[in-house]
Amino acid sequence: MRKLSRRLSDGRELIYYDESDAGPRDAPDLRELAHQTTESEVRYDPVMDEWVVVASQRQGRTYLPPAELCPLCPSRDGHLTEVPEPDYDVVVFENRFPSFSAEPCVGAGELTPLTRRLPGIGRCEVVCFTSDHDGALGQLGDRRLRTIVDVWADRTVALSRLPGVEQVMPFENRGEQIGVTLRHPHGQIYAYPFVTPRMTRKLASARRHAGRTGGCLFCAVAAGETAAETRVVATAPGWIAFVPAAARWPYEVHLYPRRHVPDLPALDDAERTGLAGLLEDVLGRLDRLFDSPTPYILAFQQAPVREARDLAHLHVELTSPRRDTGKLKYLAGSETAGGVFINDILPEVAASRLRSAGPRGGGS
Amino acid sequence: MRKLSRRLSDGRELIYYDESDAGPRDAPDLRELAHQTTESEVRYDPVMDEWVVVASQRQGRTYLPPAELCPLCPSRDGHLTEVPEPDYDVVVFENRFPSFSAEPCVGAGELTPLTRRLPGIGRCEVVCFTSDHDGALGQLGDRRLRTIVDVWADRTVALSRLPGVEQVMPFENRGEQIGVTLRHPHGQIYAYPFVTPRMTRKLASARRHAGRTGGCLFCAVAAGETAAETRVVATAPGWIAFVPAAARWPYEVHLYPRRHVPDLPALDDAERTGLAGLLEDVLGRLDRLFDSPTPYILAFQQAPVREARDLAHLHVELTSPRRDTGKLKYLAGSETAGGVFINDILPEVAASRLRSAGPRGGGS
Repeated sequence: MRKLSRRLSDGRELIYYDESDAGPRDAPDLRELAHQTTESEVRYDPVMDEWVVVASQRQGRTYLPPAELCPLCPSRDGHLTEVPEPDYDVVVFENRFPSFSAEPCVGAGELTPLTRRLPGIGRCEVVCFTSDHDGALGQLGDRRLRTIVDVWADRTVALSRLPGVEQVMPFENRGEQIGVTLRHPHGQIYAYPFVTPRMTRKLASARRHAGRTGGCLFCAVAAGETAAETRVVATAPGWIAFVPAAARWPYEVHLYPRRHVPDLPALDDAERTGLAGLLEDVLGRLDRLFDSPTPYILAFQQAPVREARDLAHLHVELTSPRRDTGKLKYLAGSETAGGVFINDILPEVAASRLRSAGPRGGGS
Repeated sequence: MRKLSRRLSDGRELIYYDESDAGPRDAPDLRELAHQTTESEVRYDPVMDEWVVVASQRQGRTYLPPAELCPLCPSRDGHLTEVPEPDYDVVVFENRFPSFSAEPCVGAGELTPLTRRLPGIGRCEVVCFTSDHDGALGQLGDRRLRTIVDVWADRTVALSRLPGVEQVMPFENRGEQIGVTLRHPHGQIYAYPFVTPRMTRKLASARRHAGRTGGCLFCAVAAGETAAETRVVATAPGWIAFVPAAARWPYEVHLYPRRHVPDLPALDDAERTGLAGLLEDVLGRLDRLFDSPTPYILAFQQAPVREARDLAHLHVELTSPRRDTGKLKYLAGSETAGGVFINDILPEVAASRLRSAGPRGGGS
């Protein structure tokens, strides 16, 4: 994999990750975009004991443009996009409408004696998985998926080094049903200036478990699901994919490496290949459940940059709100106000359906 | 207010809350519904340290029926509904598709060494706010809103006495955009067999605050917003409504009683009238922001039945995902996988718009 860093006309970084020597990748960004200031800030909620991000400049972001105006396609035939080259393999660039940036124009201070605000320092990146506007992450083939795993790992290393960054989370939102505003196959990476609330909770559980047993909570979860069998969806060398016993979403699959590794960069060569294969397998099963592509959120839960790295254990959460053809699960009163998820589909039934959706090219 | 308890043909309880003597309310349920068993269970998630509800029998619930088949309208002209009488003021009944029930047909046990399952004991009720299919909670007038406040308080008392119930949460989901499956104006009440995760977090924050200062966290939050002024939306005797400094949703308003009270039953007469008036005021403002009714979730955060009642302080959370005409905020990767909310609208701007949306019948 070859990596070349470039700049867009407004100063944002763009990085080509090429699978082969694809020329100098020196096409300039001809759009003459003005440098954007961002006004992101993070605010502390003293009741929930969590940080919330306020990023008011994002309200004007691009919303479901037609394919011929897609900003993630390569620049071709006079249509200038976020990617100056006429083709690419995988490309990463700083989000034009970021929730975090290196130097947001916001002061720190107190909003009330209980609520601090801080500048939203960090970085938000877009990862285009393919130059093919009509592709899908799960259908790009083994080689490309392995490249993408390497890109996610490389970005985790790079973003972890930025000042103020405490956690790096690569994720993909897929499907307009869940609010995706650009159809081109892409993911995002958020480099947060704090440890996310869900990771904080997970690490607190891991700390209690380690205190009680001396072992890793996540290793014990994977061992428990391996032994129970009934919720296992698929495996790959070094990996297991299962529907968690207490799944929140109609279709929810977690991918755990068998080995206790903190994050993507710590995966060895075989584990990266295993992850690429398992992602392809599980995403394919998810898409074969219904008669149209399944909306989902895919996210990497990795160790924070500094804190509690020994307690963390890399895993992937893949969740879909689709509970039936044409029906989505919504987060209503119980989930939103109580934090109590009501799942209509038994995790064992979801796992069985995903197993029956078969590996690529054949059903069972 | 007169209260009469009745039974539907499948044994579920139905309670008429009448504002005046409206006859015996003894119309029988002629539908001959079979008694339903429920299979709800709660499962412990050892990673998030939370209970999740699995209620697979709800998947077949009624979904957006046409108005003439509305199950929440009174029974008239041969159309038999959940309410046998031909008219009603406010009526409460046990949900036909509940997430919790008194005797779910599910055993307890271990799914893995880390994940217990328990029967989903508790109760789910539906509250019809009016017999008018086309009404809306915010437009029912002072008297009806006061009746509804009294009903919520009465149900909190009644449900708190049921075996195994640890928290009672009245709420309303409003708008098909957020997944409402029945258009008739109604709310729900969940009586949970555990303290909800969000309340657990709030009480942990309140405990830390009390340890540090000796005072109530929620009283301090309300005092802070009162002093800051900029996020206050409206007030009523004994109450303040404000956009919280760290709001998660584009439009989010919290209603706090000035006095330190744990729950709805503890409100005195003047505070109940104040709450009814403030709800009408704030819901009206929310609906005047856009050219169509605003989708929202309204929920009461009250003290658990047993635990930490001195730390809790009743408040209402009113949240809308609408960020612009025709645009909703979706919970995508950052919110779902990280628990990090990204809010596109500055809380101070949201509060200013709600103030400008004026009281009933007049502009700002």
